[in-house]
Amino acid sequence: MYKAKFMRVFHLGKERQMRSVEFEKGRLVLIDQRKLPFEFKLVECRSAEQVAEAIRNMTVRGAPAIGVAGAYGFVLGLEGVKGGKKELDARAKKVFELLVKARPTAVNLRNCLARVLKATLYARNVEEKMLVAVAMAERINYENLVACRMIGINGAKIVRKGARILTICNSGPLACVDYGTAFAVIAEAHRQKKVKMAYACETRPRAQGALTSWEMLNEGMPHRVIADFAAGDLMRRGEVDMVIAGADRIARNGDFANKIGTYTLAVLAHENNVPFYVAAPMSTFDRELQNGAGIRVEERGEDEVLFFRGVRMHPKGARALNRAFDVTPHKYVRGIITEVGVIEKDNKGSSMKREMSEKP
Amino acid sequence: MYKAKFMRVFHLGKERQMRSVEFEKGRLVLIDQRKLPFEFKLVECRSAEQVAEAIRNMTVRGAPAIGVAGAYGFVLGLEGVKGGKKELDARAKKVFELLVKARPTAVNLRNCLARVLKATLYARNVEEKMLVAVAMAERINYENLVACRMIGINGAKIVRKGARILTICNSGPLACVDYGTAFAVIAEAHRQKKVKMAYACETRPRAQGALTSWEMLNEGMPHRVIADFAAGDLMRRGEVDMVIAGADRIARNGDFANKIGTYTLAVLAHENNVPFYVAAPMSTFDRELQNGAGIRVEERGEDEVLFFRGVRMHPKGARALNRAFDVTPHKYVRGIITEVGVIEKDNKGSSMKREMSEKP
Repeated sequence: MYKAKFMRVFHLGKERQMRSVEFEKGRLVLIDQRKLPFEFKLVECRSAEQVAEAIRNMTVRGAPAIGVAGAYGFVLGLEGVKGGKKELDARAKKVFELLVKARPTAVNLRNCLARVLKATLYARNVEEKMLVAVAMAERINYENLVACRMIGINGAKIVRKGARILTICNSGPLACVDYGTAFAVIAEAHRQKKVKMAYACETRPRAQGALTSWEMLNEGMPHRVIADFAAGDLMRRGEVDMVIAGADRIARNGDFANKIGTYTLAVLAHENNVPFYVAAPMSTFDRELQNGAGIRVEERGEDEVLFFRGVRMHPKGARALNRAFDVTPHKYVRGIITEVGVIEKDNKGSSMKREMSEKP
Repeated sequence: MYKAKFMRVFHLGKERQMRSVEFEKGRLVLIDQRKLPFEFKLVECRSAEQVAEAIRNMTVRGAPAIGVAGAYGFVLGLEGVKGGKKELDARAKKVFELLVKARPTAVNLRNCLARVLKATLYARNVEEKMLVAVAMAERINYENLVACRMIGINGAKIVRKGARILTICNSGPLACVDYGTAFAVIAEAHRQKKVKMAYACETRPRAQGALTSWEMLNEGMPHRVIADFAAGDLMRRGEVDMVIAGADRIARNGDFANKIGTYTLAVLAHENNVPFYVAAPMSTFDRELQNGAGIRVEERGEDEVLFFRGVRMHPKGARALNRAFDVTPHKYVRGIITEVGVIEKDNKGSSMKREMSEKP
């Protein structure tokens, strides 16, 4: 496994070198993202079922990280399977279905699983299948790490010195195995001393902003957490120079799904002439989708809204609506920061659409 | 005191008849809004200092309610004062200053205090001063109740049958002694069987949406609480027919301050062609302000963002920014629902401005 650079995790004063998703023969080790930033706990998965559950309950979260975890989960699902090619193929298909359903919105999970499944198609026995599955999972992991690193480098080029950047949810090393997407851009720009202030939306209901504030602290970045609804006021006051968000699925025309609230941010940025960028690896494009209308958005349980970290917020009997993602039309997007460069709109807003249809 | 209708408080299965602010000789009784909806507790204030503290720490909150509480607080501040007219006037001025500073953004507090102070100017001794102060405080309370009731009735007229209405923060009986402002409109429309769904934004950081969900439950209203950032997606899907917000201070041109996030909602409504209304008594107008630029916005402690109901959300060392209000330019406002009628924009958006300058 490629281990050139680790996420530097400072916890309780100790520095640990650990990625959010790590694979060793027979087990997948995950940083438990539900406990952070208060408890640093590892969760070990030894079966595809355990990986699917870890994705579902958000032990591991973030579109790129669940893609990589899913690929390794597939490997675990094949381990020790008995029988001939027929039984093996049936098991592979079952494991694919199990994992792909764990979370529906991000395309990375499906893309990564499809790649591993396809790689194993011509294997003649369980040893061969395992060999190619592991090789493909490692490759996916490696490609993702390189992509995230390049996203940071490419994105930092368009950050001007003294920038005040606002982001939503968590798109850092935790969400992406390492580096991050939107966060990688801010972190790289920070290392280049360009960032005056980073604003993290707390991102209710699950408050992934707390993972972001933790990562910002780890990077020693000047930052402020804000209540989500405060983003508009901040932009109206001219205190935000740039908004960067991650993405869970991008359609061919540039419409994209991301954490609920991203659409709200995009509209606010549009209204206040603040450039709005998406940062995501090319694997986030769903080339089967012409536009955002076809994106299925996950609706999660009401209790995520009605409770907060186990503390009830609303009276018994109160009801909530909890759609976890929203879809932002491409017209609000200034550009998409990818590992192959920044896909920017020309003045007529047309070239992004063309370019995106042409990209691999 | 006018007691035609009480807020019906259902708590722990028992119905209580109680308003959020109640005055008896020598004491002001407040429903502790920090404990609701989980604990129904009353707080008794026997001095202006205690009332100021109750306003500051948000035992009593909501622009109309703190106006009324402030007026009664002034009365308590005069009680038992010894000395001649000079000492009395000095004490009155001191009490005024103490109370007016408790929270700076809402104009109602200043307006109500100014009225009581003015009423007592010509009183010759402490007995006379107390008499006129109590009379004026009672009158302010009564006027506010009538205004809120009329806001509900006037506003319900413009709600169409089957409406799905979204609101922010808490503008119900708790915030207004009784009835409410934006909430009164929704509640009256609900009694007229016009409301298909009421959406309550949870309104971080203090989650006053929990007071609203409680009041909606008390009214038996179909409702859903949403994470604040979900408001945009809901509007984009066409699931909101109307947004109604309260106001803490309205300038002559219609710009207004309200709970942080109101500006965000107004921009989202504008972008999605959803009519956006403000509901507030005429006493919310600050006729000294030409526009919203002069509104002072309260910045509150970082811990309101970093913690939630005493539970730490962000790692130690994380910083937050916590502006409690924002200012919404009048161009986003379709109309202002008041006790004297609905001040609506004509197609050119000009009449509201004219009307508002002319209103008392």
